[in-house]
Amino acid sequence: MPKEIVIVGAVAVGPKVACRLKRLEPEANITLIDRDDLISYGGCGIPYYVGGDINDLEDLYSTSSHAVRDQAFFENCKGINVLTRVEAVEIDRNGKKLKVKHLESGEEESLGYDKLVLATGASPVIPPFPGGDLPRVFTLADLHDAEKIKKLMSQGRVGTAAVIGAGAIGLEISEALADLWGIETTLIEMEDQVLPTILGKCIARIAAKEMEKKGVNLLLSERVLQITGREGSDGCVVKTSNNVLSVDIVVLAAGVRPNTELAQNAGLSVGISGGIVVDRRMRTSDPNIYAGGDCVELQNLVSGENTLMALGSLANRQGRVIATNISGGQSHFRGTVGTFCLKIFDLGISKAGLTYRQAKLTGFDPVYAAVAQADHAHFYPSSEMTYISLIADRRSRKILGVEAAGKNGDAVKARVDAVAVLLKYGVDVDDVCGLETGYAPPFASAMDVINNAGNALDNILAGSNRPIDAADFLFDFAHKEIKVLDIRGEKEAVPFLQKYGSRWLNIPQDQLRSRVAEVPQNEPLFLLCDTGPRSYEAQVYLSSQGITDTFNIQGGFAMIIATDPEFI
Amino acid sequence: MPKEIVIVGAVAVGPKVACRLKRLEPEANITLIDRDDLISYGGCGIPYYVGGDINDLEDLYSTSSHAVRDQAFFENCKGINVLTRVEAVEIDRNGKKLKVKHLESGEEESLGYDKLVLATGASPVIPPFPGGDLPRVFTLADLHDAEKIKKLMSQGRVGTAAVIGAGAIGLEISEALADLWGIETTLIEMEDQVLPTILGKCIARIAAKEMEKKGVNLLLSERVLQITGREGSDGCVVKTSNNVLSVDIVVLAAGVRPNTELAQNAGLSVGISGGIVVDRRMRTSDPNIYAGGDCVELQNLVSGENTLMALGSLANRQGRVIATNISGGQSHFRGTVGTFCLKIFDLGISKAGLTYRQAKLTGFDPVYAAVAQADHAHFYPSSEMTYISLIADRRSRKILGVEAAGKNGDAVKARVDAVAVLLKYGVDVDDVCGLETGYAPPFASAMDVINNAGNALDNILAGSNRPIDAADFLFDFAHKEIKVLDIRGEKEAVPFLQKYGSRWLNIPQDQLRSRVAEVPQNEPLFLLCDTGPRSYEAQVYLSSQGITDTFNIQGGFAMIIATDPEFI
Repeated sequence: MPKEIVIVGAVAVGPKVACRLKRLEPEANITLIDRDDLISYGGCGIPYYVGGDINDLEDLYSTSSHAVRDQAFFENCKGINVLTRVEAVEIDRNGKKLKVKHLESGEEESLGYDKLVLATGASPVIPPFPGGDLPRVFTLADLHDAEKIKKLMSQGRVGTAAVIGAGAIGLEISEALADLWGIETTLIEMEDQVLPTILGKCIARIAAKEMEKKGVNLLLSERVLQITGREGSDGCVVKTSNNVLSVDIVVLAAGVRPNTELAQNAGLSVGISGGIVVDRRMRTSDPNIYAGGDCVELQNLVSGENTLMALGSLANRQGRVIATNISGGQSHFRGTVGTFCLKIFDLGISKAGLTYRQAKLTGFDPVYAAVAQADHAHFYPSSEMTYISLIADRRSRKILGVEAAGKNGDAVKARVDAVAVLLKYGVDVDDVCGLETGYAPPFASAMDVINNAGNALDNILAGSNRPIDAADFLFDFAHKEIKVLDIRGEKEAVPFLQKYGSRWLNIPQDQLRSRVAEVPQNEPLFLLCDTGPRSYEAQVYLSSQGITDTFNIQGGFAMIIATDPEFI
Repeated sequence: MPKEIVIVGAVAVGPKVACRLKRLEPEANITLIDRDDLISYGGCGIPYYVGGDINDLEDLYSTSSHAVRDQAFFENCKGINVLTRVEAVEIDRNGKKLKVKHLESGEEESLGYDKLVLATGASPVIPPFPGGDLPRVFTLADLHDAEKIKKLMSQGRVGTAAVIGAGAIGLEISEALADLWGIETTLIEMEDQVLPTILGKCIARIAAKEMEKKGVNLLLSERVLQITGREGSDGCVVKTSNNVLSVDIVVLAAGVRPNTELAQNAGLSVGISGGIVVDRRMRTSDPNIYAGGDCVELQNLVSGENTLMALGSLANRQGRVIATNISGGQSHFRGTVGTFCLKIFDLGISKAGLTYRQAKLTGFDPVYAAVAQADHAHFYPSSEMTYISLIADRRSRKILGVEAAGKNGDAVKARVDAVAVLLKYGVDVDDVCGLETGYAPPFASAMDVINNAGNALDNILAGSNRPIDAADFLFDFAHKEIKVLDIRGEKEAVPFLQKYGSRWLNIPQDQLRSRVAEVPQNEPLFLLCDTGPRSYEAQVYLSSQGITDTFNIQGGFAMIIATDPEFI
């Protein structure tokens, strides 16, 4: 058993390695070092601190029993040495020594190690346009950034803000600014959707609508060209490809990049993704040096490709694996399927696996089903609509990804997690159709929304369900002369009949068999019901009557309204 | 493709087969028959109708778009023939005919079939004691029973009730009676815990406490000897092994038994569990006869044994499989891992796999970890304590079961479902430690409660965590002179120091290393913290100091209070 363990980085993975290793090997001498004076904090909580859900910064580095996780805590409660405001400068792999620098005094010293752990994390990407270094331009790298922004806001000095990048942090921080603080917030994204690396277009549109509904000004497909200081007052002018915005602060949320300089300078392998290469035991190319957390690259277990995945949950699991292995055990971290969730305003969003675009780029032939269904039994009083998009490879029927949104975020996460944990086993569409999750009316339907996502995809693959995405329908309906056959009740159809005249036909489901002669025979038709199953049934019936040029609007009216609340 | 399809039974599996088959084969002539006049209802919703969460009985047999699922609905919307108040009398397998009897007229007729589907369901078990047939003794077999009970209650004629059997239906109906209607309800169970076939003792005790907290009088380990009519007024006298209760109504909730008479008389195989034997394609021993739902036996994919599992969710999934196979497709239903959930009062309960007792009976060497942790990040404002018990086989480390409870039922179900879907793949403890579920502070912890259940079990199997169940601690502490070492803060410990004097030691975690000399060396000690991780850490540390006769109270004080709210 190695006696001297040095760990570089004291957030998430570093403390996890240290604490578990000390439990496994009480005799080990473990030293945690960090450049910062605040350590072992919940970085994912930063947006909630900025937004005010969490009042006290200390809550982010306290334990569940309210002990502050500072140097004294680690020494007294855990028996672990902590050096803060200390930077790792250079690894001497032959001598097994780490040169460090005390940032306050400038002094350097050398720490010998038997095993070294690199938990150096990641840093915000500073985009290439000019102005990223202005004083009113912030990133959210650590608690100090969060404090600075919150201080400005609490002084009443922020009325307008621009957030650059509509990834998870960008969305969370936009909510934080706009919601409690009432700051006029503009979110700018160069891709044509929010969460472009996380969601496909169907669920991304629901997320975007939630942002807009709650007052965030969303600019998609806009590239920031430059940020300049505002004349006459603090603040910035953000010039994009289409707009010029004058704002009090700018938050850069353009993603993060792994901190690998220390590793690279020591000659350790770094992958093409930019992360430190580790094996399944989380060892770098030097068997005496482990690495974990945001600084390493991981295998995506769906695509097989190496990727970066900066998530505190993965970091913690990796930390446990590293500690077990250092203490002489055998523990493996195989990779990630990209399971993810977030809350934006009242919407829970969850995903795992590949998006449609990623699947296509990886070489799959992806196809997806989109469904809308209540999370609980429809006859039970409390239920929320849940939207799921399930993606499979056409030929192998292998599940490639799942995405979901809905107001009951715990229930949304439940559906996605149940598929997520199976992804690495290579399950197929039939496995999702038969997924055995718990059923009781207060918590699920007998045929649950996740099973029905599988069923819909099965029907699409079988060719009996010929779908159109709700957003594609909205586009086509606005631009082409295609008619809608609405099989909902007369009451639901009336406003549409009035608005769209002869382009909107209504034959309620229970009359379709007797009135089939009224259905136009030789022109394309969009079929619409509440959530999709009845329009699918109508499609099948019409096909049996020789009417085959029909498109079943996936997720029905529920999905249309979630995608465009103004479509009356 | 077979043209004539007859389906016996029009609840859950029957309608599912009929509707999907009609979509797959629009030309098929499909006839659904049922003894009842009410069909295609959500039987699992009955307790919520009785309790008042659902006001209108019709809601239980309406679609999500408010169409009533009656004979006309199936004929007009689905193109399916329905015969109600018609009983299946006899199957002529050679002639491929089903003799049926019209219950109103007494007339019999013969229905030819190419494929026959048996969806005959299950009937309530009438326990062997005398009095089960008295007029004020009810079962909950169908909507008519529910209506009768609700009518009596709404007439103000029910002030007291006894429910016999603390299975899921027994608990749900006890809540229905006690909660909205304020009926003094006594729940009687002959086993020593509630939900004896569903939960192990740890989570069962939490469920029992919830029942008692909400005013249900719970009699465990009591056998009902007889029920007699009450003299002078409607009502019953229930005599048990320990009590005599005078009540206005009795509800029998002693489980259900599959309806297999029709199948047995036709010479179809029936298994030792009492259910109709089917293969993976849901075919009986006659390839022209399929069966599904509560009347069939299924393989338990964890134990390998055949079992009964009367659940609407399984019935619906089986219905889809049957329809696919009848139409010439290939679809398999492999069995069940017993995933289950229910809500009782404010508590969500969820489970999958085997209980500790079942695992032992099956021949495994089970060991379990019990953990308590918030469902969301502890620093996030909204979170609820979640209690999980995870069971594995000691030698193979294979996961055998998982059980959970907590106030956020959707979150409880999420954790159990994520393990449930993996059970049939034979996953082990390490897979649960590394389970990749979604993380964001509003929905989970970075090291989530389900991962920590795996971690705790891993530590128990490694021998470093030597646990005691909270309930066993309560028993031992009451009956033996063992001391508690409480490593929580002084403030938390004070009331216990006052109450238990020298039997309660308090050394806060951050002082344990400096005050270890105060810890008694040669006597057993119960180690206590808030939820378990710190007492585990203390155990490890004390072991390193040669103090090894310690028991870590699983789930800490949170589990103790959930098990016995009166333990101050």
